[in-house]
Amino acid sequence: MREFALVDRLAQRLNPQRADTRLGIGDDAALIAPPPGQELAITTDTLIAGRHFPSDTAAFDIGYKALAVNLSDLAAMGAAPAWVTIALAAPELDADWCDALLDGALAAIGRASVDIIGGDTTRGELTLTITAIGCVPPSAALRRSGARVGDLIAVTGTLGDAAYGLQCWDARASASPDQQACIARLTRPSWRTGWALRGLASAAIDVSDGLAADLGHILNASGVGACVNIDALPASPALARACDRDQRRQLQFAGGDDYELCITLADSALDSARAALDCPLTVIGRVEAEAGLRVVDREERPWAVEDTRGWDHFA
Amino acid sequence: MREFALVDRLAQRLNPQRADTRLGIGDDAALIAPPPGQELAITTDTLIAGRHFPSDTAAFDIGYKALAVNLSDLAAMGAAPAWVTIALAAPELDADWCDALLDGALAAIGRASVDIIGGDTTRGELTLTITAIGCVPPSAALRRSGARVGDLIAVTGTLGDAAYGLQCWDARASASPDQQACIARLTRPSWRTGWALRGLASAAIDVSDGLAADLGHILNASGVGACVNIDALPASPALARACDRDQRRQLQFAGGDDYELCITLADSALDSARAALDCPLTVIGRVEAEAGLRVVDREERPWAVEDTRGWDHFA
Repeated sequence: MREFALVDRLAQRLNPQRADTRLGIGDDAALIAPPPGQELAITTDTLIAGRHFPSDTAAFDIGYKALAVNLSDLAAMGAAPAWVTIALAAPELDADWCDALLDGALAAIGRASVDIIGGDTTRGELTLTITAIGCVPPSAALRRSGARVGDLIAVTGTLGDAAYGLQCWDARASASPDQQACIARLTRPSWRTGWALRGLASAAIDVSDGLAADLGHILNASGVGACVNIDALPASPALARACDRDQRRQLQFAGGDDYELCITLADSALDSARAALDCPLTVIGRVEAEAGLRVVDREERPWAVEDTRGWDHFA
Repeated sequence: MREFALVDRLAQRLNPQRADTRLGIGDDAALIAPPPGQELAITTDTLIAGRHFPSDTAAFDIGYKALAVNLSDLAAMGAAPAWVTIALAAPELDADWCDALLDGALAAIGRASVDIIGGDTTRGELTLTITAIGCVPPSAALRRSGARVGDLIAVTGTLGDAAYGLQCWDARASASPDQQACIARLTRPSWRTGWALRGLASAAIDVSDGLAADLGHILNASGVGACVNIDALPASPALARACDRDQRRQLQFAGGDDYELCITLADSALDSARAALDCPLTVIGRVEAEAGLRVVDREERPWAVEDTRGWDHFA
């Protein structure tokens, strides 16, 4: 399919839904009218086949994950997602494959009011770069730098499933139902409604590189330390059944790609934060003055951290 | 260099300059406060080594071109560029190479008030995806669809240099001064101050795929046709000296990558448009009611168009 014809075809599927989208795909640029008095949060993430997702991932799941990852970044800022551009490089562009990718992208958007307003297609190694734009009231964004000594540390949902799903990927044809559940977390991650935590969380980040690395970003940006209870980390029933304790702890602590939110908040904000979310929020530790991340088990014994580096594409 | 260390290093070089940039690189997303009452124009373009620029292009020139191409898209919408994100994939990231790329990006921005507010680095085939955001008053954007029957067609600057520069690329070590000038147009294209044409141009596009293809986009979007005088197309002195007439006409008509603006406008707006620009504006034809693009020479004889397809990455 010719590039121009493909763009026309995709544009027809992407008629803007938002009243403040003035012009969608098809000109030199899209046009939006930002809500008066709001700030805009802007994030860009690249996903490359074989690096950010297995090369044999289905087109639907590639589109799903690429959107979810970027919407998750906005959520971690406390911004409500509104607009997205998609730059796609692929060895060749098949219309059915592109339709499936777009189906996945739209499924990840779900009921959120998000318009896909632009993009680019070119020939190359299979790569998606998404830029996502969201709205947030002035000074209401959730930054990494706001954690205060004494704050609770909490995470949404459960940790470790996606990393275990990746371990199971090559044998997925014979995977158990629990393993399949974890593989599904890897391929179709949920993104959380982080804007519900405005005014409640003191700092936030989404867990893409692993809890150890991402909580570390909060601690560094805030100039604080923390103590985390390894046994408090929430696990899905599937992960708890599929792995022994040591493997599970490692996956929950250092495994990436879950796209849960890790936040800090005052004790007094915990009930409100739980009520504001549509998923569980589990307390896993507390912010301390002394720099560094201490990890203990339920009996307060130090837990040996084997790998806390997180995911570094150039390590 | 580790990814996190690299991002820190780049972020230090990219302190926001604009007062309405609330947060630059370093969190889950950047934060901007759009000017009240303005619309935002948003464009995304991917450049891949070996496809959009020769693989042996210098890092400085890669950064330069990636920025110029995207700022040109905003200019073609009549938007003043303000913010940019850069997603970079590279086989490996050398600090000096990245510094040179950033030097080139900043050189392309020049004196414009543009902040680089976000990005992503990952390992992969050398690819840059830029998203650029600019400001434009409501309903003032220059769209492709505004050309009216009887309008003049005009282009800024000169056409054909970049395409000729690409032809000379492999022999650039022994290139003549004229050929070197054309190669420089390919590697460091100027982008035009399209916002100066608000209220003057009826339609606009930047010439990235070639005049034939890009004017064709205006004609299609506007539901009109046109007649262009092939001998009216502006050529640089270097191109005029380096090529014979037939080669020059072909390069000017179908060659891409010049990033000049092609606009339509009423006769009455021509003097104002020329006064508003800091470069020449040359009339090359007129919009007609009948669909299609007719090309004639200075004696009004039809000119045979050998290649008007433009640049299609999947052709």
